[in-house]
Amino acid sequence: MLKDMTKEQLLDFKSEVMKQYDNACAKKLKLDMSRGKPCAKQLVMSEGMLTALSTNEDCFTGATDCRNYGGLDGIDEMKEIFASILEVGKENILVGGNSSLNMMYDTVSRAMTFGVHGSDAPWSQQGKIKFLCPVPGYDRHFAICELLGIEMINIPLTGTGPDMDLVEKYVENDPSVKGIWCVPHYSNPTGETYSDEVVDRFASLKPAAKDFRIFWDNAYIIHDVIYGAKRVKNIYEACKAQGNEDRVFMYTSTSKISFPGAGVACLAASEANLAQIKKLLAIQTIGPDKLNQLRHVRFFKNADGILAHMKRHAEILRPKFDIVFDGFEKELTGLGIASWTKPTGGYFISLDVNDGCATRTYDLAKAAGVTLTNVGATFPYCKDPLDKNIRIAPSFPPEDELTQAVEVLCICIKLAAVEKLLAE
Amino acid sequence: MLKDMTKEQLLDFKSEVMKQYDNACAKKLKLDMSRGKPCAKQLVMSEGMLTALSTNEDCFTGATDCRNYGGLDGIDEMKEIFASILEVGKENILVGGNSSLNMMYDTVSRAMTFGVHGSDAPWSQQGKIKFLCPVPGYDRHFAICELLGIEMINIPLTGTGPDMDLVEKYVENDPSVKGIWCVPHYSNPTGETYSDEVVDRFASLKPAAKDFRIFWDNAYIIHDVIYGAKRVKNIYEACKAQGNEDRVFMYTSTSKISFPGAGVACLAASEANLAQIKKLLAIQTIGPDKLNQLRHVRFFKNADGILAHMKRHAEILRPKFDIVFDGFEKELTGLGIASWTKPTGGYFISLDVNDGCATRTYDLAKAAGVTLTNVGATFPYCKDPLDKNIRIAPSFPPEDELTQAVEVLCICIKLAAVEKLLAE
Repeated sequence: MLKDMTKEQLLDFKSEVMKQYDNACAKKLKLDMSRGKPCAKQLVMSEGMLTALSTNEDCFTGATDCRNYGGLDGIDEMKEIFASILEVGKENILVGGNSSLNMMYDTVSRAMTFGVHGSDAPWSQQGKIKFLCPVPGYDRHFAICELLGIEMINIPLTGTGPDMDLVEKYVENDPSVKGIWCVPHYSNPTGETYSDEVVDRFASLKPAAKDFRIFWDNAYIIHDVIYGAKRVKNIYEACKAQGNEDRVFMYTSTSKISFPGAGVACLAASEANLAQIKKLLAIQTIGPDKLNQLRHVRFFKNADGILAHMKRHAEILRPKFDIVFDGFEKELTGLGIASWTKPTGGYFISLDVNDGCATRTYDLAKAAGVTLTNVGATFPYCKDPLDKNIRIAPSFPPEDELTQAVEVLCICIKLAAVEKLLAE
Repeated sequence: MLKDMTKEQLLDFKSEVMKQYDNACAKKLKLDMSRGKPCAKQLVMSEGMLTALSTNEDCFTGATDCRNYGGLDGIDEMKEIFASILEVGKENILVGGNSSLNMMYDTVSRAMTFGVHGSDAPWSQQGKIKFLCPVPGYDRHFAICELLGIEMINIPLTGTGPDMDLVEKYVENDPSVKGIWCVPHYSNPTGETYSDEVVDRFASLKPAAKDFRIFWDNAYIIHDVIYGAKRVKNIYEACKAQGNEDRVFMYTSTSKISFPGAGVACLAASEANLAQIKKLLAIQTIGPDKLNQLRHVRFFKNADGILAHMKRHAEILRPKFDIVFDGFEKELTGLGIASWTKPTGGYFISLDVNDGCATRTYDLAKAAGVTLTNVGATFPYCKDPLDKNIRIAPSFPPEDELTQAVEVLCICIKLAAVEKLLAE
């Protein structure tokens, strides 16, 4: 443990690490562990989708010409696939364009301007609005709130979901709390999966606001890296069992299944919620790209086809997660300067360094040619109160680059930690 | 002229038309002239686009992997095509998804929530907001205003664009007038093209509101049906020459070029306008579908490729416009009960029947199996103050069906007119 070392020992440690750091810098690396992007090998697997529709005749499904106008909520076959993955009815699915983030933004933006089903007034006319934000979390959720002037409240994650005592306290007592952002499966970045108890407590909440909504971003719903892990309990069924089926908006997409820039996104919700949304959506747009939906349907055939495809993704991702786990274990175990999550799926690993060391670690890594996710990105307003969390995204770099990047990162973690201890 | 007939002559006329109408009804037709949709023959022409990207290697443009995340405003080659069509710089182009309507909605919605570049406050916080609406016009423009609570003011079209005296009066004196909807080329539904003088007067407006914007929906910019017609003067250049380049938002798309449900849309505007929008857009979405852009680029090659493609569309559309023109001329000339526009491009013909006769004509046609665009759709709040305008959309039905539909429509126009005269 570094904290038990004498000053002399720390100086020796630092001098050794400094040498390693200088060596790393001398290599003039250019490595990137910042973004949760599928890698080339994963994308190659969907090549067949490019030609899944090759002729005019291919573009029909039943009487629907997917090339032409028409259809606001997606083609039936695409709805069926999403319904199967999300374990809801086809009538609960609204298929969108290529971005589930866009669907989330639109949902919140519409709520601000028009309210949600059952609102007495648009959210923007109900005074100060607040969202609960389990942390560390996904920066782009937080950015939507910040842009729309929605106050964010940090809720610690526990390893099996948000601290539900706190969630209940806020949601049940403060009518200005209108929403909560959740990534229930392989949460970004901790990789944790919400427990059944957490899901049940969400379903049983008695919100002070009648138009409170759970934003259930199930981006990694079938993104196992190690198979056999438990799936999240079906929140829609849980809510419905309590008569609260209007409480939850669920999202997912094929962005990390087929092509990240050209996938298909969806929103799932109660029929009452969807009816309110579709009425507004009919004014917003001519409807989503049906050809791209049909391409997905023809290529994957059905939800089973997608699951099989995801197993092949896992084969590529698993060694990358292992490189990070192994590197951290080898270099950092026993030093008391870092802890990290060991997710069995998703796209991220959450690394906690010593308090006040994240920014310095990031800066050191950057100077050594390793780009990490911006420090603070995992917290509302980009402010990590303890300056300790770093999101690791192992998916994109090739294995050799990732190995190098983890080595450099470990050196930076050590250097930042020893600097801090020496300065104290 | 019907209005010069004696009552007896009118009764004879009615009885004759009634016989024709009964005959038409007996045929149990099911014809549709309601929607501005390209027909099957037009869609078939873009079959090659389906396989324009067939392999993984096809999906790159330069270093950009169009399958993966990244890029908020479109790929360079797609920007170049739109820039060339709209006669603006590449830096003025923001490429969107498959719906220019969606881009328009988003522009107005963002203006309501955040304001536009140069606004002192969001439009929604500036009291009552108004838009000018040249009429007859496009129902979906009007629906956006209605949904967002923007008051609409009818501005008559003159055959060469809106009544600019009225436009100037409103825009220059009323600071609550924040926008105007324009379809400058082959206006929907009149088919008229704005004159150079109209464009120049738009460019020289001295708006009372500093954040006034022209919504220039150039949906039919290269959609000539008869070639050799004049194009609209470049409004961006005209505005820029007056130092007013921030005044105009321009839109177009490939919806009626490639595939209506799976085309590519764009917004063109000054760099200052785009900078403000892109900052917000970066929170809204992960960015548009780059693969579909690249598909368009590879299939059409460049703007010239699109222009050549549009000449082939015109070959299909021209006979359809002629069927309507010929039918109207043969059946209605000299009766003084209808007038119609004769556009040289676009997707519509505007039919004016006698005052108070549009709804009855629509109902008669519907009962005889011919679906027309809803009466009133071409006016704000779906209210045609004189109940006289009907939008004719000749593109979608096959020629034989269109011929029949026009015949039936002419019978209905006559019947509604004679009924009205007899009732007076």
